[in-house]
Amino acid sequence: MRHILTLNSGSSSLKFALYPLAGAASLDALTPRYRGKFTGLNGGAPGFSLADGEGHPVAAEMGELPPSLDLPGATARLLGWLDAHPDLALAAVGHRVVHGGRAYHRPVRLTPEITDALKAFESLAPLHQPFCLAPVAALAERYPELPQVACFDTAFHADQPEVARWFALPREMTERGLIRYGFHGLSYDYINQVLPACLGDAPRERVIVAHLGNGASLCAIRNGQSVASTMGFTAIEGMPMGTRSGSLDPGLVLHLIQQEGMSADEVTELLYKRSGLLGVSGISGDMRELLASPAEEAREAVALYAYRAVREIGSLAAALGGLDQLVFTAGIGERAAPVREAICRGCEWLGLALDPDANRRDALRISRADSRVSAWVIPTDEERMIAWYSARLLGQA
Amino acid sequence: MRHILTLNSGSSSLKFALYPLAGAASLDALTPRYRGKFTGLNGGAPGFSLADGEGHPVAAEMGELPPSLDLPGATARLLGWLDAHPDLALAAVGHRVVHGGRAYHRPVRLTPEITDALKAFESLAPLHQPFCLAPVAALAERYPELPQVACFDTAFHADQPEVARWFALPREMTERGLIRYGFHGLSYDYINQVLPACLGDAPRERVIVAHLGNGASLCAIRNGQSVASTMGFTAIEGMPMGTRSGSLDPGLVLHLIQQEGMSADEVTELLYKRSGLLGVSGISGDMRELLASPAEEAREAVALYAYRAVREIGSLAAALGGLDQLVFTAGIGERAAPVREAICRGCEWLGLALDPDANRRDALRISRADSRVSAWVIPTDEERMIAWYSARLLGQA
Repeated sequence: MRHILTLNSGSSSLKFALYPLAGAASLDALTPRYRGKFTGLNGGAPGFSLADGEGHPVAAEMGELPPSLDLPGATARLLGWLDAHPDLALAAVGHRVVHGGRAYHRPVRLTPEITDALKAFESLAPLHQPFCLAPVAALAERYPELPQVACFDTAFHADQPEVARWFALPREMTERGLIRYGFHGLSYDYINQVLPACLGDAPRERVIVAHLGNGASLCAIRNGQSVASTMGFTAIEGMPMGTRSGSLDPGLVLHLIQQEGMSADEVTELLYKRSGLLGVSGISGDMRELLASPAEEAREAVALYAYRAVREIGSLAAALGGLDQLVFTAGIGERAAPVREAICRGCEWLGLALDPDANRRDALRISRADSRVSAWVIPTDEERMIAWYSARLLGQA
Repeated sequence: MRHILTLNSGSSSLKFALYPLAGAASLDALTPRYRGKFTGLNGGAPGFSLADGEGHPVAAEMGELPPSLDLPGATARLLGWLDAHPDLALAAVGHRVVHGGRAYHRPVRLTPEITDALKAFESLAPLHQPFCLAPVAALAERYPELPQVACFDTAFHADQPEVARWFALPREMTERGLIRYGFHGLSYDYINQVLPACLGDAPRERVIVAHLGNGASLCAIRNGQSVASTMGFTAIEGMPMGTRSGSLDPGLVLHLIQQEGMSADEVTELLYKRSGLLGVSGISGDMRELLASPAEEAREAVALYAYRAVREIGSLAAALGGLDQLVFTAGIGERAAPVREAICRGCEWLGLALDPDANRRDALRISRADSRVSAWVIPTDEERMIAWYSARLLGQA
């Protein structure tokens, strides 16, 4: 049976999934046969795990992983594993690509020309885009005829109104693409697609989705259309994240360079790697560790995180002209009940009444039945979205 | 009769006012005998105007103003004019000082040591602080015994909760003062003090003041206490302004330096001088010119300005847990009815119903009588606030 392979490559991980093409008749029906993940690449402690479609661990022969394992090495091992399993013949591969620039508003089948064009966006997302595109060449060499599809994290936001996307910069800078692109679009797209099934009769005109993972952003969706997002030109703007600062006064960046003598590279490292939950707590960028910690600094980091989320929700509600539904997703959104509780408490003024028991259970609906604004926990599935788009581009769905 | 002289020095202007000390029994009673202004300093086209307490123009002998007139030169002319008017004997001079750092939470009588300490904050506000402090030495030399008082634009915000002031940066950076200070505090303080008289019985628990002048920020005030402000560590963050960008992705600043090869000084010049209304419109940074322009670019700049204000109001309402009153002040806030209208329309979801006729008249109350959230136009008066604090420090009020 032929499969769609999805790839989601980051700076230290390579996630993949294999979906039988036979299941691609609808987004709902897409069920992975395998999900796998290489972690700790490029200088960490490499690891690999594989699970079946139900999430049960499966043994896989990936061989001994050397400490030096990098993304190309992990890709090569994945291809070798596929070679050893002829029952996993590929129909297509779908890549999560962080940045589609202004030209790519929907998934696209990759050609060498398009891949080169996407590489030009590496300067817009230097810490993400190169990794997304790295496996394309290895796959093209191994499977020259295999359709490869790029699915963009920016695409879902491409039709936002200009006021939401523009910075107040000179017009020629806006015109050549220095705008808010927004990210996590595959996640928002997925949530948006499953929303009718999850929410039933609840009104869906004004929805805010909080994608709170290792990266974090929030998106305002009006009648299925993204109208604003907190993450902008790069993956720093908006919410504080595990190790990223989120929004801060642009004058502070200049101060660090002009007055404190830091280089731009040092500031980049500071804002991407040493800030956010890690920086504020001084303990960890991992929300689970902070929630388990008795330290005052951990409590302060979590409080700042929730406060910023509440402020961003207010700002996005203004973009929507109010709020009907608040959806939590991604790692923290799906599993960190105390964080959801703090955020929902800060949204009581919008008409949100939390159901603390439902929240502790990670229930689908975590607001009280009489709450004017409802809150929900909906697991995201970017891989399924990629498989779905890849199958559609092949004409199989 | 002895007077309090107030000084408000900027990069291209020196504003002053003279208040008879006899009127310093209450803030209300303080009425200036003169208000004067040097404009076009430091390379512009120097000008001078003087008015009496009712705002009527008064002739004043400042002599021929050379094109090279700078702030020290303007200060010297002001002192010469005072010398020629023995009826204007000074009891004290009050300075608007942009930055009080973390040490100065209230007005303070200047000593050489304190003046030096304030100069250390020049790196925090390089485009403002040096001008604020420039006249201090000239006045001390001319009037060695004259009390000089510093009133800080940061002071009103000093007791904000930490979550509002902290960036998600490493803790040691927060601890050494890389936080949101907030500015326009003398304006907010003044509005806050006159609010009871202006608002009558209207609830004042949750108030947002929009100080929309050449610089622009908004402040959330709960029961008389600043709880959040849009302007942060420098005078860039928050709203777009005449020529300043307001908030933008910190990663964009890094992109301009790392990918486009700009220097930090060039980015500073870009974000302070060539962005905001001027950058977006390509026409002018002056709201009056944009409102009078038929150009589509002017309309877009005004629309972006109003949109960002609406988003910031949503964010500040979240900090307040809702909204009771919205107050407009400063040049644009007091006089640009179409801008207020656009902002109020964007706040309908909060329960604000504009009264378009009252708005066109710049009336005190510009919302309908049945509006749950009321909107107001209240002229600010930073000079009166400075005079009031200076008189109080002298024990005269």
